[in-house]
Amino acid sequence: MRLGHRVERDKRITSHLGLTARAFGADEILLSGEEDETPLETWRSVSKRFGGSLECGYEPKPMRWLRSFSKDGGKIIHLTMYGEPWRKKSEKIPFEGRVAVVVGGTKVPGELFGISDYNIAVGNQPHSEVAALAVFLDTWLGEADPGRFSDGEVEVIPSESGKNIVSKGKE
Amino acid sequence: MRLGHRVERDKRITSHLGLTARAFGADEILLSGEEDETPLETWRSVSKRFGGSLECGYEPKPMRWLRSFSKDGGKIIHLTMYGEPWRKKSEKIPFEGRVAVVVGGTKVPGELFGISDYNIAVGNQPHSEVAALAVFLDTWLGEADPGRFSDGEVEVIPSESGKNIVSKGKE
Repeated sequence: MRLGHRVERDKRITSHLGLTARAFGADEILLSGEEDETPLETWRSVSKRFGGSLECGYEPKPMRWLRSFSKDGGKIIHLTMYGEPWRKKSEKIPFEGRVAVVVGGTKVPGELFGISDYNIAVGNQPHSEVAALAVFLDTWLGEADPGRFSDGEVEVIPSESGKNIVSKGKE
Repeated sequence: MRLGHRVERDKRITSHLGLTARAFGADEILLSGEEDETPLETWRSVSKRFGGSLECGYEPKPMRWLRSFSKDGGKIIHLTMYGEPWRKKSEKIPFEGRVAVVVGGTKVPGELFGISDYNIAVGNQPHSEVAALAVFLDTWLGEADPGRFSDGEVEVIPSESGKNIVSKGKE
């Protein structure tokens, strides 16, 4: 869940955030803050072209959503530079059940620190919610199932020195 | 080195990219593309407040700079979704000497694939240069020296459920 999106200022950061969530293993992305179709369109279009079954949507009342998610037994992981070290904590976070990873914008409601099951910092230096999400998911989930994106229209083949992208005849 | 910066479109991504480079262990950041003082000011101001000795500057001719860097024995690591898997390759990249990690924008010159010593992909899915840089540096360099940022004006103390930022009396 991306909190506090601002249409103008966060356009590309929010778009990158969703693509990062997708690439590093999220099943669903919820946008909140200012309503904006653009990032949702980007995420859907990348998902269609490069594969996978990403869900995405806009959530107008994120804190209400999180309270209810928590009440239903979901676990909340809040990524914040003020939290506890991810290297130590990640391995203690179980994989079972539903988990929401929440990343804020500039200001997050103080309540979030309280309702989160884990406040996790990817370093206590200011950097980027995109960086934090990527490193946290990579550490916590490890290598994603390579078959996850096998239904895409195109596939990038790793190459030592050039670009190799193959169309899978579905375009 | 950040290639192909565009003042309007990339404002926040470039700013996040530099902060990510700093937080994950870079000593210096070079901006190229459109000339822009804003990200440099952000990087310097964060560095002053949160510590460390980050160098940053603008490089008008990045390809010339890279060619000359390479000729002088520096190693170039190009992060690209078309490259080879970082999990396998990172451990083969030596730490010795000078290393430039290059991240592009939308379009990078084809020449870069050729002059780079390593074309490395943090996954072959489209996501974000910020995510790629963070995960690559974290994997390759591992945990940064905690004393690296000890000369800052403020310090964040990890906390389970709130914000704890202490001023070190130098503000």
